[in-house]
Amino acid sequence: MDLLRNLPYEELGFAKIDLHRSLRQGLPEVIFCPGKTAKQVVEIAHRLKQHHELVLASRATPELAAAVLPQLQGAIYNELGRMLIFGPLPQPDDSVPAVAIVTAGTADLPVAEEAAVILQSTAIPLVQVTDVGVAGIHRLLGNLELLQSAAVTIVVAGMDGALPSVVGGLLDSPVIAVPTSIGYGASFQGLAALLTMLNSCAAGLTVVNIDNGFGAAVAATKIISSIMSAQRRPPARERDNRYSSPGAP
Amino acid sequence: MDLLRNLPYEELGFAKIDLHRSLRQGLPEVIFCPGKTAKQVVEIAHRLKQHHELVLASRATPELAAAVLPQLQGAIYNELGRMLIFGPLPQPDDSVPAVAIVTAGTADLPVAEEAAVILQSTAIPLVQVTDVGVAGIHRLLGNLELLQSAAVTIVVAGMDGALPSVVGGLLDSPVIAVPTSIGYGASFQGLAALLTMLNSCAAGLTVVNIDNGFGAAVAATKIISSIMSAQRRPPARERDNRYSSPGAP
Amino acid sequence: MDLLRNLPYEELGFAKIDLHRSLRQGLPEVIFCPGKTAKQVVEIAHRLKQHHELVLASRATPELAAAVLPQLQGAIYNELGRMLIFGPLPQPDDSVPAVAIVTAGTADLPVAEEAAVILQSTAIPLVQVTDVGVAGIHRLLGNLELLQSAAVTIVVAGMDGALPSVVGGLLDSPVIAVPTSIGYGASFQGLAALLTMLNSCAAGLTVVNIDNGFGAAVAATKIISSIMSAQRRPPARERDNRYSSPGAP
Amino acid sequence: MDLLRNLPYEELGFAKIDLHRSLRQGLPEVIFCPGKTAKQVVEIAHRLKQHHELVLASRATPELAAAVLPQLQGAIYNELGRMLIFGPLPQPDDSVPAVAIVTAGTADLPVAEEAAVILQSTAIPLVQVTDVGVAGIHRLLGNLELLQSAAVTIVVAGMDGALPSVVGGLLDSPVIAVPTSIGYGASFQGLAALLTMLNSCAAGLTVVNIDNGFGAAVAATKIISSIMSAQRRPPARERDNRYSSPGAP
Amino acid sequence: MDLLRNLPYEELGFAKIDLHRSLRQGLPEVIFCPGKTAKQVVEIAHRLKQHHELVLASRATPELAAAVLPQLQGAIYNELGRMLIFGPLPQPDDSVPAVAIVTAGTADLPVAEEAAVILQSTAIPLVQVTDVGVAGIHRLLGNLELLQSAAVTIVVAGMDGALPSVVGGLLDSPVIAVPTSIGYGASFQGLAALLTMLNSCAAGLTVVNIDNGFGAAVAATKIISSIMSAQRRPPARERDNRYSSPGAP
Amino acid sequence: MDLLRNLPYEELGFAKIDLHRSLRQGLPEVIFCPGKTAKQVVEIAHRLKQHHELVLASRATPELAAAVLPQLQGAIYNELGRMLIFGPLPQPDDSVPAVAIVTAGTADLPVAEEAAVILQSTAIPLVQVTDVGVAGIHRLLGNLELLQSAAVTIVVAGMDGALPSVVGGLLDSPVIAVPTSIGYGASFQGLAALLTMLNSCAAGLTVVNIDNGFGAAVAATKIISSIMSAQRRPPARERDNRYSSPGAP
Amino acid sequence: MDLLRNLPYEELGFAKIDLHRSLRQGLPEVIFCPGKTAKQVVEIAHRLKQHHELVLASRATPELAAAVLPQLQGAIYNELGRMLIFGPLPQPDDSVPAVAIVTAGTADLPVAEEAAVILQSTAIPLVQVTDVGVAGIHRLLGNLELLQSAAVTIVVAGMDGALPSVVGGLLDSPVIAVPTSIGYGASFQGLAALLTMLNSCAAGLTVVNIDNGFGAAVAATKIISSIMSAQRRPPARERDNRYSSPGAP
Amino acid sequence: MDLLRNLPYEELGFAKIDLHRSLRQGLPEVIFCPGKTAKQVVEIAHRLKQHHELVLASRATPELAAAVLPQLQGAIYNELGRMLIFGPLPQPDDSVPAVAIVTAGTADLPVAEEAAVILQSTAIPLVQVTDVGVAGIHRLLGNLELLQSAAVTIVVAGMDGALPSVVGGLLDSPVIAVPTSIGYGASFQGLAALLTMLNSCAAGLTVVNIDNGFGAAVAATKIISSIMSAQRRPPARERDNRYSSPGAP
Repeated sequence: MDLLRNLPYEELGFAKIDLHRSLRQGLPEVIFCPGKTAKQVVEIAHRLKQHHELVLASRATPELAAAVLPQLQGAIYNELGRMLIFGPLPQPDDSVPAVAIVTAGTADLPVAEEAAVILQSTAIPLVQVTDVGVAGIHRLLGNLELLQSAAVTIVVAGMDGALPSVVGGLLDSPVIAVPTSIGYGASFQGLAALLTMLNSCAAGLTVVNIDNGFGAAVAATKIISSIMSAQRRPPARERDNRYSSPGAP
Repeated sequence: MDLLRNLPYEELGFAKIDLHRSLRQGLPEVIFCPGKTAKQVVEIAHRLKQHHELVLASRATPELAAAVLPQLQGAIYNELGRMLIFGPLPQPDDSVPAVAIVTAGTADLPVAEEAAVILQSTAIPLVQVTDVGVAGIHRLLGNLELLQSAAVTIVVAGMDGALPSVVGGLLDSPVIAVPTSIGYGASFQGLAALLTMLNSCAAGLTVVNIDNGFGAAVAATKIISSIMSAQRRPPARERDNRYSSPGAP
Repeated sequence: MDLLRNLPYEELGFAKIDLHRSLRQGLPEVIFCPGKTAKQVVEIAHRLKQHHELVLASRATPELAAAVLPQLQGAIYNELGRMLIFGPLPQPDDSVPAVAIVTAGTADLPVAEEAAVILQSTAIPLVQVTDVGVAGIHRLLGNLELLQSAAVTIVVAGMDGALPSVVGGLLDSPVIAVPTSIGYGASFQGLAALLTMLNSCAAGLTVVNIDNGFGAAVAATKIISSIMSAQRRPPARERDNRYSSPGAP
Repeated sequence: MDLLRNLPYEELGFAKIDLHRSLRQGLPEVIFCPGKTAKQVVEIAHRLKQHHELVLASRATPELAAAVLPQLQGAIYNELGRMLIFGPLPQPDDSVPAVAIVTAGTADLPVAEEAAVILQSTAIPLVQVTDVGVAGIHRLLGNLELLQSAAVTIVVAGMDGALPSVVGGLLDSPVIAVPTSIGYGASFQGLAALLTMLNSCAAGLTVVNIDNGFGAAVAATKIISSIMSAQRRPPARERDNRYSSPGAP
Repeated sequence: MDLLRNLPYEELGFAKIDLHRSLRQGLPEVIFCPGKTAKQVVEIAHRLKQHHELVLASRATPELAAAVLPQLQGAIYNELGRMLIFGPLPQPDDSVPAVAIVTAGTADLPVAEEAAVILQSTAIPLVQVTDVGVAGIHRLLGNLELLQSAAVTIVVAGMDGALPSVVGGLLDSPVIAVPTSIGYGASFQGLAALLTMLNSCAAGLTVVNIDNGFGAAVAATKIISSIMSAQRRPPARERDNRYSSPGAP
Repeated sequence: MDLLRNLPYEELGFAKIDLHRSLRQGLPEVIFCPGKTAKQVVEIAHRLKQHHELVLASRATPELAAAVLPQLQGAIYNELGRMLIFGPLPQPDDSVPAVAIVTAGTADLPVAEEAAVILQSTAIPLVQVTDVGVAGIHRLLGNLELLQSAAVTIVVAGMDGALPSVVGGLLDSPVIAVPTSIGYGASFQGLAALLTMLNSCAAGLTVVNIDNGFGAAVAATKIISSIMSAQRRPPARERDNRYSSPGAP
Repeated sequence: MDLLRNLPYEELGFAKIDLHRSLRQGLPEVIFCPGKTAKQVVEIAHRLKQHHELVLASRATPELAAAVLPQLQGAIYNELGRMLIFGPLPQPDDSVPAVAIVTAGTADLPVAEEAAVILQSTAIPLVQVTDVGVAGIHRLLGNLELLQSAAVTIVVAGMDGALPSVVGGLLDSPVIAVPTSIGYGASFQGLAALLTMLNSCAAGLTVVNIDNGFGAAVAATKIISSIMSAQRRPPARERDNRYSSPGAP
Repeated sequence: MDLLRNLPYEELGFAKIDLHRSLRQGLPEVIFCPGKTAKQVVEIAHRLKQHHELVLASRATPELAAAVLPQLQGAIYNELGRMLIFGPLPQPDDSVPAVAIVTAGTADLPVAEEAAVILQSTAIPLVQVTDVGVAGIHRLLGNLELLQSAAVTIVVAGMDGALPSVVGGLLDSPVIAVPTSIGYGASFQGLAALLTMLNSCAAGLTVVNIDNGFGAAVAATKIISSIMSAQRRPPARERDNRYSSPGAP
């Protein structure tokens, strides 16, 4: 509680910036651009840059990027991933377990790239397999060993969203499914793929919001982070049986 | 591919039983009861029992349990979690990181219990915190340290489904959200809670299907399993930059 | 037009019975039971029986079957397929191409059985493969040759509804997908599986209503019937280019 | 009834303007712009201005504002709140209880500003707390005393819409929740946030339409107005027990 | 913050009971029954009864009531409002402003009664007007003066849910709309009425969940409570202009 | 049947034009523009003009109108109603009963105007009452006698769509409700108003598609036409009691 | 207004009974049973019976009918139409134009019967055509002349709801479409049929709520009533051109 | 399995191109353009062209076509069908059974054209019937013989989507229904038509995604291909009765 009360944030009037989050989670600070003006993005980026080497801004349209880039010395724009990168991306750290990103089709690549940049910013090694939708299952099977080498797999798919079910059945490691808004008609902007993934017959699959490559990457980072810090964690408490039902042993 | 082709399964006519899955993932065999007759559940359970010490059957109604129990010597029924348990549950292994299960309200307990039994069957230590919905945030804050001791947290909530957003903002470890069908009117049998969780402002939250305590537990088990096996994993490959956009460094 | 005007039907007051349809399409007469009283089912069945050797009644609940059976001499009840069978089912005719019925899980069997009885009533040979959901893809791959021997494949799946996409990618013959209402939570009584199938990345997949095993079987019968009658069809007319766009050659 | 029959309105052909409403409720006249031409807005504004010192026009796009402003002498345009202000805004009246407006994120500010301008036009004092989404709960807790000083609190949130549940649990005064269309994917243009708020576990929360800052401000004004006029109200009638159920005491 | 940390609650294992809420808000303790066993309801009720004179339990089915009543000495069951009442209801306090409850049809009465019992438990005087749906607008107009005597009005309506729009246009005081699940076909269990109310053209209307008479009553109580405590509130702070847009004066 | 077979239509390749419909129903020929090119609209209009004095084209955007008008000698464009008028509109025929068109708000006028032009083209006298939404019920009540003078009333409303329920309760003559897409947030492009109208508590209200002023006008024309031709109709047959239930007298 | 104020209604506490409606519209008084207890239905029926010869109660379940019938001397129960009939049904009046009721399938008969009883109670002659769904279009075409003899046609259809489009294209008289909840899977309890009818390509079709045979019958009665009273109506006013757009002639 | 493992594909980094599919199914290679850049389309087209004479690209916007055409020597653009055609279309092969394409309205032609080009590329003869919506059923009946000459019929319809039900009832051959997004209001971009078709009372109708002319054409091609290869298929296996229910004969 004391910790919580003392957490620092910086007041900009239109925003309150957390300064401790990246320290805590090993993640860079990421500005979510939609709904923010170019001026607001620049101001937040400069403030964060005072405390952090690397600042990202996600979901940046080309128009926003064009307005912002001249005011952020040294920043670059990853157009595929719609990401502004303000500071040096670290080299992949090979002592860390890899995360795989699998995409069903070419049109799913922007969402995969959003995830990829987030992971690159954390130095986690990446494995990428693209265009392996289930209608040509042999393309996936041919890349199975590659996927088995990763500690966590992110599966990005639109249309029928069926790929994570197949991947989830083939891998023992955690699989995070990202539905995309790719499709037409009864895809309802990704709703079909989202429902497919939530109803997956592959047990243990977890799902993030439609097009949320960022969220999947943060989830993967948290898992990798858990793996790396496993040694430092205190022994867990035993189960609290207070409300166990009569039927439980 | 050869491995895949040779994976064993047993043919029952109405079902094909995988015999290797639990070996591979450290999970017990779990029979999903809905849509199966008592006779089918008994037959599958007996077949699995020839290869495994512990067999579970989930979503078993009291009526199904009453029909099945006399034919499964030594099985018990966990009514709260709607789970048939056929074989001995192992003791929690304190050398393994714990999983926390947090519930928003009393009515969410059956879903939490489903997850709890799955985790118990894997010997993963459990931490449980109940009835800490966000409308009384002090109850959650008072249990924060307890949650921080776990490696993975499962948050179970119906109605507004807001609890995972708050928990996800307070913890650095992976958080898996389970919406429940608890609520009425515009909750639409859990749809409201599901949408809340998918749109969470807490980055890195992942979500499973409504009432899917089983799926959340399997996801948590996969993460714990990754942590335990981190040492054995080969070094990851470097990122494949073949389709990087011009903006990427 | 003259043909249309003269098509016979029998007036029962509460129903108008087509007497020519089965002659035309090689299908038995099938009474759709929901919304009909036992008395109405019996009356229609007796009228049809005067003109046809075999009469079926679909979606018959056990209660309806119990009320109807004593009044339909020689009829039997297929409980799994919820079908009343009033008359002899023919032997499969091996000179006719087979139809395959593939199911993702045990709980999808009732819908598959509804389709199977319809096909049996037409003497079309059947191939059945059960419990080959995509989360255990090796079970499907092991039955691939069997499926390739059929002229048409019906794929029945609930939950994520992903199986038809995989099957559709593996087979060159027509594939008809049947979503089932099996699932829970965000499956919304089969809506999720339906959307998955409509958005399938396997081109050429066609879809019927949720749980509509009957419709899939009729569609398959029409295709088989087209194959059998291919020789008798007159040469097709050339394309009418009246409104071709300027870009068309 | 006589009162109702004699209520004045002015006929413009395309609109009937109430002239008594603002007198009755202490609210300024507000023109809802969508679906009206610039010419219509100008005409209504001029008519209203003959009877009222202050006239507002809500949901005015920049294009509409540019077309209308030259014809409304002295009017200004609040771009953030999309509001045309035609006449002097009064000074806050410190003898009146304050209304607090809380926003979850920077992108929710336009909706909050719409509410703020309405409240400013009534001289009700305002308290504003911005960017306190529940994923960083410490930012909200740090502003709790400020919120407790207000008589009514408006909470504006998009995405998961979870903030009102937390605020509603912390405050004893009336809380009005405004979902916003901020979000993407499964937010469905604010539907997710709306459902969250309707299902809030914080009892007594009330909700307005998505992005309806105007409606929330009017509701708050009505409550403040009730407080201010509490003395003038006649003693209430006793409860009419005519249809009380047998179980009621 | 210190206050928050020290808020008392009692741990029952399956529930954490707030002991301070009713003291703070003038509301009785209300147990929400769905999802709780009779045994749990009895246990919570007894614990609460140690600290409070009056304990309520809402949404109690007749079956639950029958199981619970023998164990709660002196409790009665209000069948229309599905409410268990454990302790004496106070007499209406005529020095307090009244709340009106208006219902569109006879079938909406159970939801209105739920609200009525909550208000009775707070001694707030009640005014009730029933069966005044808008298709017979004269019935409403004939009761207008009665409604104008109340400080807050709750309007309960199913089917088209149009009544709150008409009432909201006629009254200057706060109006809270409660959609009910009464209707059929395209009412979708109250969704139609809910949408009508959210889109009301009567400004300032606020809405609660479908069938949520309890929530409406709590919201009304908070407003009445604000009116009663208006004198004790400290002077409000002036508006914080930090992020005002350039267009704001 | 012979009549049906011999009905004339003209083949344009991309369209088949009915030439008898307007003769039969007293309606002008109306071209529905969406999905048609300017060239196609011009071609259909010229063909129809050979047989009819008056040809209309509905849902014409200003862009389409600008492209089409130069090629249709003497046609004019009604911008409010998005209607191209190619030929002389007849004078209202005062021997025919009038149709009333009532609109809830200014923004609903385009839909009302579409209906008005259709009715003008049939010489049916019109009564129009605008901006009488239910939140200011006195504006409607003041125009009640005017509405009672019409034989059919069309009510056009967006947002909450509550106006038809009130009008339907006040008038004995047929009332046709037209929901409009006016609104925002939870209006879902007119879905809220549509559902309100379908669930109206005013018995006998009928409804057309969202924004379908054309359809409402055609329905009204059919009723007026029935009234005018009442004398010519043969005496109706008695009721056919063949399937009457046992309970019917 | 004076008329409106003086309209009589009788106060029962739980209901306000209009006594003038049936006089005004030529309709019997109809009690809508859902949500009312047997005791309430009996009480309302007795009150109405004091003023009217014929009283109906719609949507009466067999259970309700069994409880009510012994207390309503001389009442009978039409089970198919779920209607209680309390008083003598008049003979059809052959001087009045007939209404046709067309049903797509046998399962749609209960909804058609509800409409039929309402029409019988008004002495309007009935024409009924059953089981003419569009999949066997010859059955409809064979009954076309019968339909053309009616002044108004009600079309009742579930499943695809396609019948009204075909009927509406064949008849010049008003057509009212009633979707039914008959169907399964993606019929969503009649939503599919409802949407089909709202989107009908047959201009002038109007629609009522799902299963609302009562509403369709009242709408038909209003049209017949307009026809019968056409002579008594005063000459209509000319069109009010106040807001005509520049493009209108 | 060996076959599957050895299936060739070409790796482009952003895509994996199947080289065997067209050989296997007699279909041309078709590039789905949405989500691909002009550069990507050109690159894939050139690669495919090395192996195939004819390459198509579907859903190409005019902008994409303008960017791509200069780089694809000899390609043409079918604007109506939004299809790029890179290589010679074959002449229709009159020894092959024809496919009919039926459209309900002029606005449905783009979807029909997409299907037509696919079929033209396979040399299957085409029969086209346009603008035969069910509201003018005589236009369809006049073309019935033409449709009966085809082996498969594709029916394309928007708005109410009723045409396939009527066509399906008239033809014995397989019918594939394609809903289009043509319509407005409650058509919900084709959802209404899709639901109509899924709920068709014409048994055996199958459905593809909204606007999916491509998918319907591929399905038709597969059926035609089955007919052509009927002779080469091995005799089918007998039915596997392993799980037949007790009721089955």
